[in-house]
Amino acid sequence: MKEVSIIGIGTTPFNILEGKSLKEIATQACLDAIQDAGLEKESIEAFYLGNFISGILTGQETIAPLVANSLGLPKDIPCTKVEGACCSGGIAFRHGYLLVAAGLAKFVLVAGVEKMSSSTTEKNTEGLASAFDQEAEGRTGLTFPGFFALIARRHMHQYGTKIEHLAGVSVKNHSNSVMNPRARFRKKVSMEEVLASRLIASPIKLYDCCPISDGAAAAVLCPAEIAHQFHKKPIDILASVQTTGYSTSYDMDDPTTLIATVLAAQKAYTISHLSAQNIDVAELHDCFTMAEIVDSEDLGFFPKGKGGFAVEEGLTTVGGKIPINPSGGLISKGHPVGATGLGQVFEIVKQLRGEHENQVKNAEIGLTHNLGATGQVCTVNILKRRD
Amino acid sequence: MKEVSIIGIGTTPFNILEGKSLKEIATQACLDAIQDAGLEKESIEAFYLGNFISGILTGQETIAPLVANSLGLPKDIPCTKVEGACCSGGIAFRHGYLLVAAGLAKFVLVAGVEKMSSSTTEKNTEGLASAFDQEAEGRTGLTFPGFFALIARRHMHQYGTKIEHLAGVSVKNHSNSVMNPRARFRKKVSMEEVLASRLIASPIKLYDCCPISDGAAAAVLCPAEIAHQFHKKPIDILASVQTTGYSTSYDMDDPTTLIATVLAAQKAYTISHLSAQNIDVAELHDCFTMAEIVDSEDLGFFPKGKGGFAVEEGLTTVGGKIPINPSGGLISKGHPVGATGLGQVFEIVKQLRGEHENQVKNAEIGLTHNLGATGQVCTVNILKRRD
Repeated sequence: MKEVSIIGIGTTPFNILEGKSLKEIATQACLDAIQDAGLEKESIEAFYLGNFISGILTGQETIAPLVANSLGLPKDIPCTKVEGACCSGGIAFRHGYLLVAAGLAKFVLVAGVEKMSSSTTEKNTEGLASAFDQEAEGRTGLTFPGFFALIARRHMHQYGTKIEHLAGVSVKNHSNSVMNPRARFRKKVSMEEVLASRLIASPIKLYDCCPISDGAAAAVLCPAEIAHQFHKKPIDILASVQTTGYSTSYDMDDPTTLIATVLAAQKAYTISHLSAQNIDVAELHDCFTMAEIVDSEDLGFFPKGKGGFAVEEGLTTVGGKIPINPSGGLISKGHPVGATGLGQVFEIVKQLRGEHENQVKNAEIGLTHNLGATGQVCTVNILKRRD
Repeated sequence: MKEVSIIGIGTTPFNILEGKSLKEIATQACLDAIQDAGLEKESIEAFYLGNFISGILTGQETIAPLVANSLGLPKDIPCTKVEGACCSGGIAFRHGYLLVAAGLAKFVLVAGVEKMSSSTTEKNTEGLASAFDQEAEGRTGLTFPGFFALIARRHMHQYGTKIEHLAGVSVKNHSNSVMNPRARFRKKVSMEEVLASRLIASPIKLYDCCPISDGAAAAVLCPAEIAHQFHKKPIDILASVQTTGYSTSYDMDDPTTLIATVLAAQKAYTISHLSAQNIDVAELHDCFTMAEIVDSEDLGFFPKGKGGFAVEEGLTTVGGKIPINPSGGLISKGHPVGATGLGQVFEIVKQLRGEHENQVKNAEIGLTHNLGATGQVCTVNILKRRD
């Protein structure tokens, strides 16, 4: 296996991008990443594009060659859409990594995209619910706020996690994204405001939920040995892992743990010869505030049941023991579902380059964690600044 | 690069599979392939599932982990859905090939699936049209019969291709599938019947079109060096290539050629040190009779413009110079869009094992050609019987 580096990143804001199509925003993020890498687009040897629900929302499938043609990529290269619900971007990144690591390609472009704001809330809810097993929980009418509400109730029952812990995640992430020009929300919220916000699925309130957003993010990967020729601050990929979890909540032995995250993290730590204690900054999948708490435990940052208390103690703030989602996370930066995995990579690369607007001091090793559906799909990446 | 072999294949019939869900048919094809390989499912190290429009048609996305859980595959492996319109199955196959060829996995399961018959014709038409660029030709109302009708008109104008040449493809493929128990249509049709069938998009008639179908097909891949331990007739993969073509008809210099096919074939022949003349049997993408003629030229079996005349001369029958679609092809075996690429692999493996119901005598080298959308995506595989 060759060592692989990130030499270029690009992104749109994660926001309501009115008047911009899926193709346009994906193209823009890719062009930015290629330019950041100082690469000719003719050098790209493969393209992976993560997307979840453009078929259902916009009636547009087969978007990988579509965006490739919009970019003007060569015709003799493979351009592939990958889908794994909200983990689609993470899967695209990992597939680019695999090609370069295996020596099958030198320069690979990876991206994620979603255009949600032109659809109604009902259509978005229907689209997102397509990640449930339609023969099982899907047809019961369970939605993702409901799914994470079930987890929250159990977590609170089992570990004494408090409603204020959930709200604390929202307060922290909103506070973080004030500084992030790519974020959808740039205004602080107080604990009182979160707790007083509209009930969505008890105990989950409106401000416990990530917002519907548009966005695209991209990266260019190449072998570590030549990365310095393209970017003065290449970021090395120490591990990139993808795993599988349960399709329904009732299959889970313990719904307070998402097994795909646990397995992906264990594997990523083993491959990189690191542990959770070595991570300086993490962007993890906080589709709901409860998810951030569960993820932070499943990734090994805190013992099971202690994630909520860690938030209360400020351990996950910038400057804390393990800064989580300094970008604002899905909750406050936004969650254009297919783009999120690459958006996380964008934020961590900025951190490791020392160029983030909400910089974690001297961040050397970063982690991204992208989750799909009921925890059915997970990718974990460990990235490192070049010494 | 390691050499890679196919050690197991499985499929459902390509037909109206009433009362069977997408998950059930995918699971069945996969179980059959695993059993054919004589493998324990716990040995599978990665799973790729090709699917085009389950999101739009059935509201079910994220089907790779869903089917993996239905199969009982391990949780620590990556399970990925790939999409490239009607080429989705071919893309899944190639990704399994890449993992084994790169030494990243020993045993990979690949599959394709589509469930179309539970949706209305209108919904299927809408779903299939999602492969057009919705900002360009998609919104003009162009459909795929229309797209291939444009190609047919130009081909007839430029090369003197006759309406009877198109009909001849239908007659041949219907005749072939009489013997194929997996085929949707098992009844011969005459030239007169094809020509008298309902006009769909001039000059394309009803019997020039492939039928809406349900189906799933799967294969198990492993390194060639250990293939004999699992199947007494392993089939070696000499080349597996994926390319990109134009998104719209008006971008094409010459709409009688689909550039993605030309590039994929050239690359596949180069990698395998073979030429079109070495191919003993081919399953190619005849979504419409016109497509078979264009493909047969683009793959190098006949000079450009001569594909229709070759049909007339009987060169593409079993027993002819290059038997094309002895399975019945998409036209008569059926075209469950996401499954087709793997269905073609199933048919060619049966041929190379010498076990096909419509056997090409002493077939040693076979080719599969899977096409997506407006020729936006293409995969070509060259497969060989072990001496």
